[in-house]
Amino acid sequence: MKVSVFRKAHFNAAHRLHNANLSDEENKKLFGLCNNPNYHGHNYMLELKVKGEVDPITGFVIDTKILKDLIQTEVHDCFDHRNLNLDTAEFKTLNPSAENIAIVIWNKMRAKLPQTLEVSLRLYETENNYVEFDGK
Amino acid sequence: MKVSVFRKAHFNAAHRLHNANLSDEENKKLFGLCNNPNYHGHNYMLELKVKGEVDPITGFVIDTKILKDLIQTEVHDCFDHRNLNLDTAEFKTLNPSAENIAIVIWNKMRAKLPQTLEVSLRLYETENNYVEFDGK
Amino acid sequence: MKVSVFRKAHFNAAHRLHNANLSDEENKKLFGLCNNPNYHGHNYMLELKVKGEVDPITGFVIDTKILKDLIQTEVHDCFDHRNLNLDTAEFKTLNPSAENIAIVIWNKMRAKLPQTLEVSLRLYETENNYVEFDGK
Amino acid sequence: MKVSVFRKAHFNAAHRLHNANLSDEENKKLFGLCNNPNYHGHNYMLELKVKGEVDPITGFVIDTKILKDLIQTEVHDCFDHRNLNLDTAEFKTLNPSAENIAIVIWNKMRAKLPQTLEVSLRLYETENNYVEFDGK
Amino acid sequence: MKVSVFRKAHFNAAHRLHNANLSDEENKKLFGLCNNPNYHGHNYMLELKVKGEVDPITGFVIDTKILKDLIQTEVHDCFDHRNLNLDTAEFKTLNPSAENIAIVIWNKMRAKLPQTLEVSLRLYETENNYVEFDGK
Amino acid sequence: MKVSVFRKAHFNAAHRLHNANLSDEENKKLFGLCNNPNYHGHNYMLELKVKGEVDPITGFVIDTKILKDLIQTEVHDCFDHRNLNLDTAEFKTLNPSAENIAIVIWNKMRAKLPQTLEVSLRLYETENNYVEFDGK
Repeated sequence: MKVSVFRKAHFNAAHRLHNANLSDEENKKLFGLCNNPNYHGHNYMLELKVKGEVDPITGFVIDTKILKDLIQTEVHDCFDHRNLNLDTAEFKTLNPSAENIAIVIWNKMRAKLPQTLEVSLRLYETENNYVEFDGK
Repeated sequence: MKVSVFRKAHFNAAHRLHNANLSDEENKKLFGLCNNPNYHGHNYMLELKVKGEVDPITGFVIDTKILKDLIQTEVHDCFDHRNLNLDTAEFKTLNPSAENIAIVIWNKMRAKLPQTLEVSLRLYETENNYVEFDGK
Repeated sequence: MKVSVFRKAHFNAAHRLHNANLSDEENKKLFGLCNNPNYHGHNYMLELKVKGEVDPITGFVIDTKILKDLIQTEVHDCFDHRNLNLDTAEFKTLNPSAENIAIVIWNKMRAKLPQTLEVSLRLYETENNYVEFDGK
Repeated sequence: MKVSVFRKAHFNAAHRLHNANLSDEENKKLFGLCNNPNYHGHNYMLELKVKGEVDPITGFVIDTKILKDLIQTEVHDCFDHRNLNLDTAEFKTLNPSAENIAIVIWNKMRAKLPQTLEVSLRLYETENNYVEFDGK
Repeated sequence: MKVSVFRKAHFNAAHRLHNANLSDEENKKLFGLCNNPNYHGHNYMLELKVKGEVDPITGFVIDTKILKDLIQTEVHDCFDHRNLNLDTAEFKTLNPSAENIAIVIWNKMRAKLPQTLEVSLRLYETENNYVEFDGK
Repeated sequence: MKVSVFRKAHFNAAHRLHNANLSDEENKKLFGLCNNPNYHGHNYMLELKVKGEVDPITGFVIDTKILKDLIQTEVHDCFDHRNLNLDTAEFKTLNPSAENIAIVIWNKMRAKLPQTLEVSLRLYETENNYVEFDGK
């Protein structure tokens, strides 16, 4: 019997949608205002989901403090108050679409969490636009 | 590797729960206040979910502007500020329960979106009552 | 020293914006889609605010159960699952704009609450449109 | 074709995380502030999900009033304004972690709902910490 | 020209409504379930509001980090994961109604913030019940 | 008798806190991570409040469509998907703190709205940090 545990967190970042392999004109056509060379920004909201067996001693799948600390070091400390395109190694060449940010964060979470746990996440770019990724 | 993309939208409509094949008494018994012949109404909230491969050029599963425009023409322009029972072809004879509205909208979305994408949706009738449908 | 106490509640109703003293054409021009003769509807959210001295015995300005019951009998039982234009005495001739609904509810609350308490309220028609009234 | 129906509800309770088989020191180490012998508390939010075929006569999977009443008698009347550790049979010896509360409520819901319906639920302990259980 | 700055924070606590000068019967009559001798609890949400002139150098009324730290030391560190009646000096004899908690927190904030700033606050006990206090 | 009407809207922008009259060191000391030379960003949420007499013919203080359009042309078209420091005339030299953005938007709203209406607004930089300005 498995239970899923969720933990939410926020980070505020600047970004622009841009594919360096395309011309400026193509980028503008594909991404419109989101391609603004001076960037725009978002309050990103991350919802991390971890599924696994409940430990009969603690009654926990995982102590949410572990998830909180992991998000702090792997997400908040890396992306909060950053320009995703300029200040982060991950998005130097990778277009920081919500989809790609979700995949990048998922890979970081997957690498640090026990393999016995299933990992998935939602990333809200705005209240109306968000994405979900479970590694499959 | 597939990512799900979500887009939210709102519409405000009047409706009543009513099955024309049943007597007034049976309708009242089944639907109570929701059967009020003069209608009541809701701020419906739609959450459309589309799952598919991430395009390596755009970093998108689908441009959310396409989802936004699709919801505008297929949902908002048809149902917003309407009486679902009186003003829409879909609910002339079909009881506009949250379940049925969700199925109707899902069919409209499914017909307009590429077959490579999985489609599901949530429809909130109120903050406390909502439904989910994925076509299965 | 005065504290304000708030209580929230919801009701779902149909309405149309319409002034019976104007022509159909004028009504349509003034109110657009909101003038739909078949009505549309909303999940209204009421936020009642009552300000007064804190009773040293109870630590209450007023027991919120009193506010809850008052909203139930004066608002919910009268307006929930109703057509405001057709089913309520208050809006038979008065246009049920958010402003007018707020004034009507405020008058009902003011009449039932002790004169030592200041009364004001917010009425949300949608998440993005709402009004506030304090009787002045 | 199956639709999922959701119903939300709230209850406010005190609890402490504590495993009676462990020493006070071990409990404090495992649960930190949550082990406070004088308890702390939460506004729990329950989101019940029921999946099944839509009845062609009512357009319902299940009348949400049934879900509302079931949550009232099986959850609200048992846990609201209670101390989970002291006032409930279920958590006399079982540690009231969010995971365990979710499993307990799921078992109560499963026992009372028709076997033709799939049952799952989310339990929010805070806005940032919540769990999900579907019985598997 | 004055601007108001808001900062939100949360704390989770147990409490019971109880006036030690009254009999058990009177307490039960006044406070009902909230008088449960074993306590219940809430996720309290505090919204602190500070009004003052905008500093032309920083563009701030006050650095919100100061508000954040003040709430941490004066509210969170004192009340979070506590039993308000048993674990805090303020509510040993004072009934921890939302009104009284708001007044206690306001006094703590007022004492630590510059006299040039106006201070008020909202305290949410639940999503539907909350209070506001500005010291007047 | 006056009623207040509210209209909400969102815009997403990049910014950095920076005072060009101060040294880099002083800026970093004052603004910390918010001074990142590569910018960060937010989903800003604007809540515009307009208070005035209710027109007896329309039942409106002001048609919310006027507020919606005004926010679109004066706020959204100017600030959405922009870098406030680089792309806007208003914040070329003025530090785009929440306080200053609120004052700038208030001035734009005040200039376009009838003098018979009182104007105030809230600007949310994040869910936890926001400001309010009424021109006084």
